[in-house]
Amino acid sequence: MENIYANRMKNVPRSFIREILKVVDDPEIISFAGGLPNPDLFPVDEIKNAAVYQFDNHGKEILQYSSTEGYPPLREFIANRYMEKKDLNITQDDVLITHGSQQALDLLGKLFLNEDDFIAIEEPGYLGAIQALSVYTKNFKTVKLCQEGLDLEELEDVLEEFSPKLLYTVPNFQNPSGITYTNKNREKIADLLKRHNIYLIEDDPYGELRFEGEDSVSFKKLIPEQTILLGSFSKIVAPGFRLGWVVAPKDVLENLVTAKQGADLHSNYVGQRIIYQFVKENDLDKHIMNIKMRYGSQKNAMIDSIKKYFPKDVEYTNPQGGMFLWVTLPNNISALELIDKAIEKKVAFVPGDPFYIDKKNVNTLRLNYSCANEESIEEGIKRLASTIQELVI
Amino acid sequence: MENIYANRMKNVPRSFIREILKVVDDPEIISFAGGLPNPDLFPVDEIKNAAVYQFDNHGKEILQYSSTEGYPPLREFIANRYMEKKDLNITQDDVLITHGSQQALDLLGKLFLNEDDFIAIEEPGYLGAIQALSVYTKNFKTVKLCQEGLDLEELEDVLEEFSPKLLYTVPNFQNPSGITYTNKNREKIADLLKRHNIYLIEDDPYGELRFEGEDSVSFKKLIPEQTILLGSFSKIVAPGFRLGWVVAPKDVLENLVTAKQGADLHSNYVGQRIIYQFVKENDLDKHIMNIKMRYGSQKNAMIDSIKKYFPKDVEYTNPQGGMFLWVTLPNNISALELIDKAIEKKVAFVPGDPFYIDKKNVNTLRLNYSCANEESIEEGIKRLASTIQELVI
Repeated sequence: MENIYANRMKNVPRSFIREILKVVDDPEIISFAGGLPNPDLFPVDEIKNAAVYQFDNHGKEILQYSSTEGYPPLREFIANRYMEKKDLNITQDDVLITHGSQQALDLLGKLFLNEDDFIAIEEPGYLGAIQALSVYTKNFKTVKLCQEGLDLEELEDVLEEFSPKLLYTVPNFQNPSGITYTNKNREKIADLLKRHNIYLIEDDPYGELRFEGEDSVSFKKLIPEQTILLGSFSKIVAPGFRLGWVVAPKDVLENLVTAKQGADLHSNYVGQRIIYQFVKENDLDKHIMNIKMRYGSQKNAMIDSIKKYFPKDVEYTNPQGGMFLWVTLPNNISALELIDKAIEKKVAFVPGDPFYIDKKNVNTLRLNYSCANEESIEEGIKRLASTIQELVI
Repeated sequence: MENIYANRMKNVPRSFIREILKVVDDPEIISFAGGLPNPDLFPVDEIKNAAVYQFDNHGKEILQYSSTEGYPPLREFIANRYMEKKDLNITQDDVLITHGSQQALDLLGKLFLNEDDFIAIEEPGYLGAIQALSVYTKNFKTVKLCQEGLDLEELEDVLEEFSPKLLYTVPNFQNPSGITYTNKNREKIADLLKRHNIYLIEDDPYGELRFEGEDSVSFKKLIPEQTILLGSFSKIVAPGFRLGWVVAPKDVLENLVTAKQGADLHSNYVGQRIIYQFVKENDLDKHIMNIKMRYGSQKNAMIDSIKKYFPKDVEYTNPQGGMFLWVTLPNNISALELIDKAIEKKVAFVPGDPFYIDKKNVNTLRLNYSCANEESIEEGIKRLASTIQELVI
């Protein structure tokens, strides 16, 4: 077939991470490359019991087609949890269950973006969002991410000059940087956005995984009418169900339901019912506490090793939650060059490149600490440090 | 927010069926409106056992993220079954697991259709396809569906005049008409398509549900390089998992994987593993035989009642498989007018309108026979017949 594909597919970057993950199948490699939750913390028995209960008591029902919006009691659980934890004034009617946050991104791109529309995104930004949204437009405008959150001057410039329809953010323990926006930064962003015809996407898969510091205010609290909040069971229960959700203003939600129906009718119902049963019968807060304690220890182990082994002119973030931290190498070192040598030394990470829209051969990289134990973290960081040393000299 | 949605959403029809299904929640209504498999035939215990086995033996693994293509042994099972049943020369590498065939349609629209591209579709056509694809183009060209399959002259005209990139078909027990293309019709379609730069979508969710007559040849056998074959576990196991698949030529499949990754990373892995365990430990052919026997009896009951009660000038199809038959009323009767009166008499169906691209107030309607028992089929057809009688007079 000649020239038969749609133009939109030309913009889509191949997934960099997938390629790297293929390389790191070698069991001798200590990998900080993935973005996986730690499977040792999956509540396997509790989920099995939830599944058995549902099959025994509602088998025919959970195997049938269901509603596009999702299982009402599960949506109610999500709404109530936001009311309780984040003081949000929402109900189940504001919640749509999706096949992971990733699907929410695809639906939002479909719903909002003509090919000449602009979207604003953090720099560095989550590559899954770049991949999902680049199907719909190639007009990404980046706003620099600083220690406090978005660079407000850059944001204002982008808003004024390009009128983006969407601003994509991960305000808590951002992927890839681990940065959390301060409340003050959030308030200023909210004030700015109020003056524009724009929706803010608050992608928050890690928000509950705070192991240090104080909880932050949600954009959904600050500018509810302009915020589309995404959440996921992947990091607090398990990703194998591919279940997440969108909380959006009424009109947006109705349109998302139409888009979702065309995309896959509804999210897998068996999984929705099992997860509902799991959260009903178990103490989700206690389960999340276990995850946070583990990830917190592993993050501390990584920071301690970095302090001990990395050359002094390497910079890094020190996240208060989530799964990633971000390393900035001395200017003359390319992370792409480093990864090849690191893999030879049996350690892996994700070079910064796929997290940028239009920068190449950057000197930044992402390290994941959720999936390795403390000893292999020390050993891996030691290997990485010696690889960096060789390039510095 | 003002004028913030993408133009593509303007083309998408609201789902008609969803609106009707809301009305027929009334338990006194006998509904032939749905498109649901019969839940009495769901193998609940076998699926529960499969789930327990997977949680007990592979719990951590099935709850983790997985590959975009899908679980390799499940893809191998699908490929082997096609080799065995349809003499197709394919392997697991040709198979991508999707969230139902519906997602495959969305991914195909995304992959192929620019907004000025054309797509050819049967008239009447499956409304889920119309809904999924109308996000990407509004240029649908219809080809009339006759007793033998597609009208070949119309097809040739559409191919010559509009050069559609895709031809969407449901060649077995079509939704909504119940019609099956003859082998001769398929061969002629294949010959025609070979001379054009076009892919044929062979959507085949019902192909295994043949309760009468001889099996047909797959387009994937006739023109493998131009056929994209869609299948689903929804009608042969259960729809609650939202699991289906695409079989496509290598280059198309690779691009679909990229699109799928942006859309939701991968299909829910828990469901894939449970279905794999189910088909491994159980006799799927025997299970499908039970479904076919039941649907065959129910179809016969419906045809018998139609013969007995409907006015003589009402026409109808007599399908050899699947879940639907198609009724053509005398010319002066609108199915939309009929549905309101039918619901008053406590019987429901789907008026033909949503299955057409640009016809309104049609005199056709779809009846589903998979989800009602034989007594309520007779009673429902009796009610419908008396409603029609009132409009004829």
